Amino acid sequence: MDSVQHHISLEPRPRGFHLVTNEVLEQVPEISDTRIGLLHLFIQHTSASLTLNENASPDVRHDFETWVNAAVPEGFAWTHTLEGSDDMPAHIKAALMGPSLSIPVGDGRLLTGTWQGIYLCEHRDNGGSRSVVATLMRSA
Amino acid sequence: MDSVQHHISLEPRPRGFHLVTNEVLEQVPEISDTRIGLLHLFIQHTSASLTLNENASPDVRHDFETWVNAAVPEGFAWTHTLEGSDDMPAHIKAALMGPSLSIPVGDGRLLTGTWQGIYLCEHRDNGGSRSVVATLMRSA
Amino acid sequence: MDSVQHHISLEPRPRGFHLVTNEVLEQVPEISDTRIGLLHLFIQHTSASLTLNENASPDVRHDFETWVNAAVPEGFAWTHTLEGSDDMPAHIKAALMGPSLSIPVGDGRLLTGTWQGIYLCEHRDNGGSRSVVATLMRSA
Repeated sequence: MDSVQHHISLEPRPRGFHLVTNEVLEQVPEISDTRIGLLHLFIQHTSASLTLNENASPDVRHDFETWVNAAVPEGFAWTHTLEGSDDMPAHIKAALMGPSLSIPVGDGRLLTGTWQGIYLCEHRDNGGSRSVVATLMRSA
Repeated sequence: MDSVQHHISLEPRPRGFHLVTNEVLEQVPEISDTRIGLLHLFIQHTSASLTLNENASPDVRHDFETWVNAAVPEGFAWTHTLEGSDDMPAHIKAALMGPSLSIPVGDGRLLTGTWQGIYLCEHRDNGGSRSVVATLMRSA
Repeated sequence: MDSVQHHISLEPRPRGFHLVTNEVLEQVPEISDTRIGLLHLFIQHTSASLTLNENASPDVRHDFETWVNAAVPEGFAWTHTLEGSDDMPAHIKAALMGPSLSIPVGDGRLLTGTWQGIYLCEHRDNGGSRSVVATLMRSA
């Protein structure tokens, strides 16, 4: 086993759900040399998250944002309000979607399904650039 | 380290939460030869998901379905409606439960707790067969 | 690759979200000898969970508890009520937050962001001690 690790900086994006599959994968070229492994992606923040979902229709990503704003509204009995009305909802949303993804790799490619793409879930109004650690654990 | 990977096809099930522990584990016999490892299960779909929860009472699985339908209702301000009223809620539910599970393996067995079982969460009315990639990362 | 595994017992805590970063990490001293790896934490229960979130303000953890009680209320159309009114909501909350965390390790330290801490999410009123399996998968 030889594992590799890359620190990836994702460009700033507005609040919402964004497809970042290509931006992530082009920074882990060792996937193509991997017979069996796991690609682990980890976001080093508490107000943005990662998930996998439909990679075709932008409507799906739009509806994710609408739903999550209804489920975790800014108008709620929050006590942690010092960092803005979008901050505490962002923490909850980040926990719901999760800070990491792990995706199997086989025979040199990511074993995602046809319709699965990697989403960056930006839960702040102005989250800025986001840091992701990509770790590829593998049998050589 | 020698890792193994299996492509598992889960038989079609109706919408709801289903216990699939045995159906999955009998397809990864190498668990019994593993001293320390991680079993990673990954569903290659965006409208079904995997989670771990109570393996005893069917009432628990019934209540999961009731709650998730209330939390992510078909009647909502969805824009992505072309694939049926159960489709967009299925995408959100799949992200909430998540597309993967990773479970530690120690001394030849899965280190789940007494009450933990593997759930296939089928969020479509007619989702059909579901594909899961099982990757066992291990020290020999 | 040589992996290590530890069985950790977390002391009993009241219902709510608790920061346990130090209590967990001091039981995995091998992190400091790890060049590249993944720390996998797995809770062996179906009514408590693990997540990563803000490690500074206790208000954030308080607001997590308030929100999760509103999103998954004890007063709901539950059928599984034999084990108390806090039980079925605890199962749902546990699935939303998830039973495991995996965190990258690089150059001898956990690669969490500045503000990320490990939360034990105790969803029962009297959950008692909780068991966590820590598995460090690594290149030596």
